[in-house]
Amino acid sequence: MAGSGMAALREAAGAAGKLAAEEHEGLRYERLVDDWHGLARGTVFAAGIVIPGYPPIPRILRLATGLAERFPGPFRVEEKIDGYNVRYALVEGRLLGFSRGGFVCPFATDRGPELFDPAVLEEAPSRVLCAELAGPGNPYNIGRPPDPVADVALYAFDLLATDGSGFLPAGELDALAAAGAVRRARLLGRHTAADVAALRTLLHRLDAERREGVVFKEDGPQGRRAKYTTARVTVDDLRVTGAELLDLPPWYFTGRLLRLALFVDEEGLPRERLAAEMGTALLEGMLDAVAQVRDHGRVEHAFRCRFRARANAERFAAMLRGRAAVQVLVDGIEPDAEGYHVLRFRRVYPAMTGLLANVLRGGAIED
Amino acid sequence: MAGSGMAALREAAGAAGKLAAEEHEGLRYERLVDDWHGLARGTVFAAGIVIPGYPPIPRILRLATGLAERFPGPFRVEEKIDGYNVRYALVEGRLLGFSRGGFVCPFATDRGPELFDPAVLEEAPSRVLCAELAGPGNPYNIGRPPDPVADVALYAFDLLATDGSGFLPAGELDALAAAGAVRRARLLGRHTAADVAALRTLLHRLDAERREGVVFKEDGPQGRRAKYTTARVTVDDLRVTGAELLDLPPWYFTGRLLRLALFVDEEGLPRERLAAEMGTALLEGMLDAVAQVRDHGRVEHAFRCRFRARANAERFAAMLRGRAAVQVLVDGIEPDAEGYHVLRFRRVYPAMTGLLANVLRGGAIED
Repeated sequence: MAGSGMAALREAAGAAGKLAAEEHEGLRYERLVDDWHGLARGTVFAAGIVIPGYPPIPRILRLATGLAERFPGPFRVEEKIDGYNVRYALVEGRLLGFSRGGFVCPFATDRGPELFDPAVLEEAPSRVLCAELAGPGNPYNIGRPPDPVADVALYAFDLLATDGSGFLPAGELDALAAAGAVRRARLLGRHTAADVAALRTLLHRLDAERREGVVFKEDGPQGRRAKYTTARVTVDDLRVTGAELLDLPPWYFTGRLLRLALFVDEEGLPRERLAAEMGTALLEGMLDAVAQVRDHGRVEHAFRCRFRARANAERFAAMLRGRAAVQVLVDGIEPDAEGYHVLRFRRVYPAMTGLLANVLRGGAIED
Repeated sequence: MAGSGMAALREAAGAAGKLAAEEHEGLRYERLVDDWHGLARGTVFAAGIVIPGYPPIPRILRLATGLAERFPGPFRVEEKIDGYNVRYALVEGRLLGFSRGGFVCPFATDRGPELFDPAVLEEAPSRVLCAELAGPGNPYNIGRPPDPVADVALYAFDLLATDGSGFLPAGELDALAAAGAVRRARLLGRHTAADVAALRTLLHRLDAERREGVVFKEDGPQGRRAKYTTARVTVDDLRVTGAELLDLPPWYFTGRLLRLALFVDEEGLPRERLAAEMGTALLEGMLDAVAQVRDHGRVEHAFRCRFRARANAERFAAMLRGRAAVQVLVDGIEPDAEGYHVLRFRRVYPAMTGLLANVLRGGAIED
């Protein structure tokens, strides 16, 4: 995208009311709040460049027909990691990590230089590194990927171009990963839709290992993509989020239950065992919430995130406090033995807390 | 309520836009579409009388604290039946059965004289008989009460007064039941909130028998009430409605899951077994929907309802067809060996059908 084309686009998006103005350490930028004219929500306009939003990947719920319907030719299979989506870009020489919505994420930004070699972007500043930030030390997700990650790890899966032309050739990221500059989401082979038996075997293995699933990708700047997830990751999701039953949109649960049923049906997993695991996960999550309200009057989840710079931890805490939709209790920032600044905070689930506190006290509901 | 008071009330409700005009076999009547000025939704104004709406019964989710909070004195415990709420009244000498929303129900009306002795109302026309219409032959609920009911049965639980003064003394219904004029929802004792151990034993038994639960009632025209339901009826609900996962409001499921968790927690039921039953119920329901779409392209449930008069079966079919929110396929009306007119119809679940048909074909969704 030429500079003047970008300026015109930004102006038009602004006139349409699709831009929100943000600021990070003196850098003013704008983010696209909805999909708009072929640009994905989360697209960032900053210092004369465009950092494209990460395009949503359609989900197939059936492997055989889903692949046949979508992929006339070969595709690569990549492991899907359960974390949060980050885009790294160089803006006026600064390495910034952006969230899916297009906010600078103080956590991703702070830890970025540890998680990959910044030369990936410095040697080609028009690259945007797209990756999943995962692990128990991440500030958003409660679930943990099955890899033995002690704190956080970055799994790169794409390079986007700031010129708006889409994805860079997959080989470019592969080469960077091979050179050790970045960890790549695991590649699990190259297939066509006809290889459904082999893919089924692969998915069975990933399911048994409680991995999230896979992304299928045609190569090319606008190549087709699809994602497909395992039953076990859904079970694990339900265990973690059962405590938030009323704080998540209800289709969060119904959608996952249905996904699980479709996976079990197509992959021929043992139904009884999966049903018991699913029921146990949901019940345990909810009973955990009940026990929490009984014990300390609140359903919450504690996070512990390590920052290199204390200022970033403070910035992150301020950001959490500023979001009306999320109730957060910040417990403090303390240095640890390795020189990190550890931000401890708790997310509170107000709907679950309110209902359970009321009914445990003997309150009635009308339904 | 004096006649002129009633006329003024009706006029005011109409002016407030709270009345919908309906017609049944030449009888024009109006029903209250929302709770309004102390009148319950479903209140009916017909031929100079008011048939009060059946007031919603608050649900407690904890037995011990819920009873202590709500009942300072003694209350009766009555079995709660899983069917649909009907009010029978005499209007211009005709016995009519009204649904919760205040519609004349052609099914309840047709079968009424078989299900209780109309003398209950004829000898005291200001009575409104409130009851649950339950059993596999009912046109609304798929779940079945655990009693061995071959077709349908009526379980009366209250008498309301058309003069607007509230519930008639419980003894009046008890006497009618004792005389064999009507079947009464089973009485399970008289207790106070201090008897929680005995009530817990009772609830364990009802749960093991897969009964829905209980209603606690203080006697008196405006006596306090509360309902409390078992874990097993929730499991059974989930099995039946898993196939409708996307056609019911999502809080239908989240609310029930939470109820189940609270029951298991308070009543100390074996968690593992309940979790497995819950998971199995949900999974079976969903897999049934998947199998249906694969087999005949549609998620549906077949009903078979017997009417004494063919005209009522036709009226019921016309009513079903007229409701935009429900998709129904009417298969026909045929006489059976006992002289009934059997209406066979299928309810179709369009959201579940649409999504499953799409994904089984290989369609992708964005989430």
